[in-house]
Amino acid sequence: MSTQTDDLFKNVISHAKEYGFVFQSSEIYDGLSAVYDYGQNGSELKNNIKTYWWKAMVQMNDNIVGIDSAIFMHPTIWKASGHVDGFSDPMIDNKDSKKRYRADQLLEDRIAKLDEEGKTSEAEELQLAMDNALKAEDLPRLRELIIEQSIKCPISGTANWTDVRQFNLMFSTQVGAIADESETIYLRPETAQGIFVNYLNVQKSGRMKIPFGIAQIGKAFRNEVIARQFIIRMREFEQMEMQFFVRPGTQREWFDKWKATRLKWHLALGTAEEKYRYHEHTKLAHYADAAYDIEFNFPFGFKEVEGIHSRTDFDLSQHEKFSRKKMQYFDPEVDPETGKPYGNYIPYVIETSIGLDRMFLLTLINAYEEEDLSTQEKQDSRTVLRLHPCLAPVKAAIFPLTKKDGLPEKAREIMDELKLNFNLQYEEKDAIGKRYRRQDAIGTPFCITVDHQTLEDNTVTIRHRDSMAQERVAAADLDRIIGDLVSWKNVL
Amino acid sequence: MSTQTDDLFKNVISHAKEYGFVFQSSEIYDGLSAVYDYGQNGSELKNNIKTYWWKAMVQMNDNIVGIDSAIFMHPTIWKASGHVDGFSDPMIDNKDSKKRYRADQLLEDRIAKLDEEGKTSEAEELQLAMDNALKAEDLPRLRELIIEQSIKCPISGTANWTDVRQFNLMFSTQVGAIADESETIYLRPETAQGIFVNYLNVQKSGRMKIPFGIAQIGKAFRNEVIARQFIIRMREFEQMEMQFFVRPGTQREWFDKWKATRLKWHLALGTAEEKYRYHEHTKLAHYADAAYDIEFNFPFGFKEVEGIHSRTDFDLSQHEKFSRKKMQYFDPEVDPETGKPYGNYIPYVIETSIGLDRMFLLTLINAYEEEDLSTQEKQDSRTVLRLHPCLAPVKAAIFPLTKKDGLPEKAREIMDELKLNFNLQYEEKDAIGKRYRRQDAIGTPFCITVDHQTLEDNTVTIRHRDSMAQERVAAADLDRIIGDLVSWKNVL
Repeated sequence: MSTQTDDLFKNVISHAKEYGFVFQSSEIYDGLSAVYDYGQNGSELKNNIKTYWWKAMVQMNDNIVGIDSAIFMHPTIWKASGHVDGFSDPMIDNKDSKKRYRADQLLEDRIAKLDEEGKTSEAEELQLAMDNALKAEDLPRLRELIIEQSIKCPISGTANWTDVRQFNLMFSTQVGAIADESETIYLRPETAQGIFVNYLNVQKSGRMKIPFGIAQIGKAFRNEVIARQFIIRMREFEQMEMQFFVRPGTQREWFDKWKATRLKWHLALGTAEEKYRYHEHTKLAHYADAAYDIEFNFPFGFKEVEGIHSRTDFDLSQHEKFSRKKMQYFDPEVDPETGKPYGNYIPYVIETSIGLDRMFLLTLINAYEEEDLSTQEKQDSRTVLRLHPCLAPVKAAIFPLTKKDGLPEKAREIMDELKLNFNLQYEEKDAIGKRYRRQDAIGTPFCITVDHQTLEDNTVTIRHRDSMAQERVAAADLDRIIGDLVSWKNVL
Repeated sequence: MSTQTDDLFKNVISHAKEYGFVFQSSEIYDGLSAVYDYGQNGSELKNNIKTYWWKAMVQMNDNIVGIDSAIFMHPTIWKASGHVDGFSDPMIDNKDSKKRYRADQLLEDRIAKLDEEGKTSEAEELQLAMDNALKAEDLPRLRELIIEQSIKCPISGTANWTDVRQFNLMFSTQVGAIADESETIYLRPETAQGIFVNYLNVQKSGRMKIPFGIAQIGKAFRNEVIARQFIIRMREFEQMEMQFFVRPGTQREWFDKWKATRLKWHLALGTAEEKYRYHEHTKLAHYADAAYDIEFNFPFGFKEVEGIHSRTDFDLSQHEKFSRKKMQYFDPEVDPETGKPYGNYIPYVIETSIGLDRMFLLTLINAYEEEDLSTQEKQDSRTVLRLHPCLAPVKAAIFPLTKKDGLPEKAREIMDELKLNFNLQYEEKDAIGKRYRRQDAIGTPFCITVDHQTLEDNTVTIRHRDSMAQERVAAADLDRIIGDLVSWKNVL
């Protein structure tokens, strides 16, 4: 990360706090690591991102419906999904400092250092050795590599390492007060399984026909060993996932369609195309037959924001096996080749999975601008969030020019007519210019000023965030002017 | 519960499953006790209730803002709030059956039995003795009462009881992978504390002036000993809470205002007034100086749906004490009595706290009707959800009369124009009458039928859910007709 992009990222983080977007969780108690709270503007922005996704996925597609399944699920579900056995990181402890590290992270750091030193072939060799060890889940080999490379603990400075052990990333808790009913359950590490175990309930009660999708927005939890980069990797986070159920053999076609559709969703917000790229997974997860990430160019490099995965029939088959309940769908459509209905099968699944918190950070970073407004006469600047109006937390701010002459009353009267339709803010303190700047900082598309002329002819000044242009319009037209700009039709 | 109301409740539960409102969590794994999932119609209905609350509380009040704080919080917060020490139920085990019971529940059952047998004074005496023991947290006395009353375990039939012990209702988990950083944290048992610990961050970054409120919707978790009555008492549930910060001494006036305002919110949905009542708490929680519940008449009696609590400065003072951070607000307004600013103080808090799942169940039960449509000629009936149109999961269903002659294409064309604004459903299977019934069952206010005349003059038949009346209207008017009925203006 260059100093410049490093600064940009730091500035966005402090801006997010100063303007009520994101606070460190439990800040007055010195914080809780890798957990964040959304403030008054952050929660509105987050809600707007959710609404955009829900409308685009559920409302606009009559073969996609939503659900809202619980965080608590039957523990056997995570056996079936592979999370109990496989969802873990290889950890190693230094015996002197008692500090624990991710074994692969220690090796990655070493590889980066070799690269920096120009020892490219050594770096490549180590990468290959590590990849093979990880793939074979050969934990002793990982330790061997750490020893071979003389990697030392940065705290103790020694290479006195324990064995490498798998550390499961799921949080567990005990449920049930009755002693003999008490059992260990997990906080879901992904929302997807809530869709899979409900797919037949939804299909039957909703009379869904393949292809169809089930969408869900909700919290997920992972006990990340190294949680970092602000809200990029959190222990508690939110996902927006859609599982699309298709006839086996058609998965590639639907995979390609969703891969394209999802990128369009991102670009409809007006983000420059070059800030996005696809990343194809070369090492596929055990359940996948194709996988692409949609990556965004964060100040610290391209990072995954969304994944599109062709999950085959892995999950549903596993649930059939572990629950001993049939997970098959009966397809009445006639196969043109055989002349008979396709009949019973376990559907294949295409998943689109987007991290809501990453999407939030992306939106904030992409919108953030420190704009130089200096002229020959004077230096000036502003910080403006060029958020898409559909996503802006506050759609318009209403200012009485002064606190007297009935202007506040008139401003409130205009506000009362508009607030049914839009999230507004009323501000009467400080000079108008200062109030503009505060609204720029939270991305409010419109500032509406009520002045003495308003009392005469019911017109107001409307000032546009991006151009800073002002115009005089009839108060009666505000509903339409704001409505046109913030309408979901602009992005759907 | 009478047989009739018992049946009604059972019918609502099975209707909720059959039509995709509520599924038992992890059903294919034989369920997870006291946890439920919301299906395709349930999630829309739940979202609409959330939107109604958020709009009424946040959007309509420019001195109330929202936040979205994490479920994970610093564990000391629950020390400060009193939950670590006081949020527990008194439990007793039968040594023979190894079954665990809530001691107060055993006594309550006994009191109910005495009442049934007409032994009113004995019942009253026991009630008083139990209340005193609970108030004094005198666990040995609770056991004594159980022994005195010869209460037996329904499984073993013996009175061989252990001591009474406190069982904390908070779920705990271990966070942090690094061995020496690992600590026990709790899943929040209420969303309120997320607001308290953030109140100064919000106040400062949002330049809020007292009186002001902070609202939040989110999950909370309680390890209920006896979870029951469908979604009335769940281990994972959702709350909609608003904390209103006021100047000390003004709390009673604000308490009365919010008590009235919140009931109005419920009644604006058209629910009959007699189904609601206020219930005043006579035993106040340690933090409260006034508390009322808003209760709804469920089939199993009046139950709390929402609480309005005057929480004094208890929580903020506790956080000041435990976090050692100042929790004071500086009030610049001039006190007319002293002629000086009110200055620094810890605000008093009025809380409005509504259980979203209970509100959901209330809405479903209140809307549910098995309507007899029999005439002299034939017997007929329908199950209809008379949901307020603002809350209905699907706003309109679009039906082509038949599957041919271009009617499906025309229906889709009309649908495409409307779906930007409303959640719609398309159905072409079965006779129109059957399709009407299915939409009645999920509470869809409008069914729109596209027939051959539509192809000629672009008019459609619109059928109203409640009256079952049909009328012919121009397709171009549909957006306005639906929009007028489902507009939030009707309830805000």
